[in-house]
Amino acid sequence: MPNIGILVVGNEILDGLVLDTNSHWLINQLKALRMPVIERITVRDEVSEIAKALRRLLEDGCDIIFTTGGLGPTHDDKTLKGVAEAFGLPLELDEEALAIVERQYRTLHELGYVKRAELTEARRKMAILPRGARPLDNRIGGAPGVLLEVGGCWIICLPGVPKELKWIFENEVIPLLRRRVKGAFAERVIRLLRGDESTIAPVLEEVMAEVPGVYVKSMVRPHGEGGIRIWVSAWGESQSEVEALVEEASKRLIERLGGFMGEIPNG
Amino acid sequence: MPNIGILVVGNEILDGLVLDTNSHWLINQLKALRMPVIERITVRDEVSEIAKALRRLLEDGCDIIFTTGGLGPTHDDKTLKGVAEAFGLPLELDEEALAIVERQYRTLHELGYVKRAELTEARRKMAILPRGARPLDNRIGGAPGVLLEVGGCWIICLPGVPKELKWIFENEVIPLLRRRVKGAFAERVIRLLRGDESTIAPVLEEVMAEVPGVYVKSMVRPHGEGGIRIWVSAWGESQSEVEALVEEASKRLIERLGGFMGEIPNG
Repeated sequence: MPNIGILVVGNEILDGLVLDTNSHWLINQLKALRMPVIERITVRDEVSEIAKALRRLLEDGCDIIFTTGGLGPTHDDKTLKGVAEAFGLPLELDEEALAIVERQYRTLHELGYVKRAELTEARRKMAILPRGARPLDNRIGGAPGVLLEVGGCWIICLPGVPKELKWIFENEVIPLLRRRVKGAFAERVIRLLRGDESTIAPVLEEVMAEVPGVYVKSMVRPHGEGGIRIWVSAWGESQSEVEALVEEASKRLIERLGGFMGEIPNG
Repeated sequence: MPNIGILVVGNEILDGLVLDTNSHWLINQLKALRMPVIERITVRDEVSEIAKALRRLLEDGCDIIFTTGGLGPTHDDKTLKGVAEAFGLPLELDEEALAIVERQYRTLHELGYVKRAELTEARRKMAILPRGARPLDNRIGGAPGVLLEVGGCWIICLPGVPKELKWIFENEVIPLLRRRVKGAFAERVIRLLRGDESTIAPVLEEVMAEVPGVYVKSMVRPHGEGGIRIWVSAWGESQSEVEALVEEASKRLIERLGGFMGEIPNG
């Protein structure tokens, strides 16, 4: 299974103007592809911070690193500068990327979204990529996504605008990732209507010891609704195997905690 | 101004079961106290990952580090083990923390939330703190928050249950932070009804160069509503100074982009 890292770039996240829902969306897409996210780092719009975080994610064993945000035409869009600095690559105008940018502004102009169709300096900036990178098409906005391979690790840069991020992921990234899918994941949520975490703690530990490879975590309902969710999950190489693990652990949990339990499939 | 780092702990975040809204809430509380968050790291429930992230945040110059999650009674609650490992501290039963845990379960029992009031091993676990730490009271749930000073940096550990995190922050942390407040922050959002980012990019750059200290960032409306938000913000030492910077930059932006602009105070 490839290990995934996510780098979220943007002062607007760390200054609280925007709630980051992009990475949550991305995580769930990756889960559906059976790819575990091992770490997420969020930094400000600073080239050196972006570069440092990328090097750390690589050092931590990520096989694929997604970045979100910072690909647009304005001065604060610094992600590609950060990628270039992280890996000592020059930035160069990429003809394929330029063709995407050009086509997009022509289309946006025809649709009446922008006044002028021609390439300006700010628009050309989005086609300046680290050497060796290739653009990923974007048919929603102006900024292409970017794919770069560094020592066997894929760096995939996506814009921060959710509509554009989603379009590029669904149309350009999924076909790439499919080639690398080989993991397996299963999960189940069991809801306890009564009880408290400290009382059930020994049971969770017992079951985890009895069914190696399964992860059992309890969570208090977040806003005081009462009750506890028990989340049973397993990452592995074979889908039938992880499903059997989750099934077995759930059965044991329900047997031992069944007295004060109601179960719903995905609560 | 103290630099803040946030460490979010939890497989449930990185496996997409839960959207992390705790850190967004915390960031906005800290903004109101004029304390900038410079970095956020999210890791799985693994002692070595927690420890590594804490050391990195310290190395990056954080003066205060908040952790969220992983303080409860179950096996997967590993944050304090991670803190102990990060700074080479032994874990010890803390009498003051134990008194909080004891009082909480007595109260929760009286209120009918838990069956038994007495301390179990799982409950005592929440009173085992890294040497030198002190507990922060929690009057909602069982797990005390934790405050530890390491080389002039405060590590403040909060539970992941939002109600408990908020109670501890509001009642125990704010009074501590007030002593260290000395920064200033101002921001303003200007909404463009028309236009695209690439067209306004040179104007944003001009204004940032003319008004040093101000940060100007444009953001496309996230879900295709059309229009652009321009976010003008400044961190600094004096409130009147940062407000004047934001005011001056906003005035210049409105003068130059006013043709196709509608402005709302906080859009």
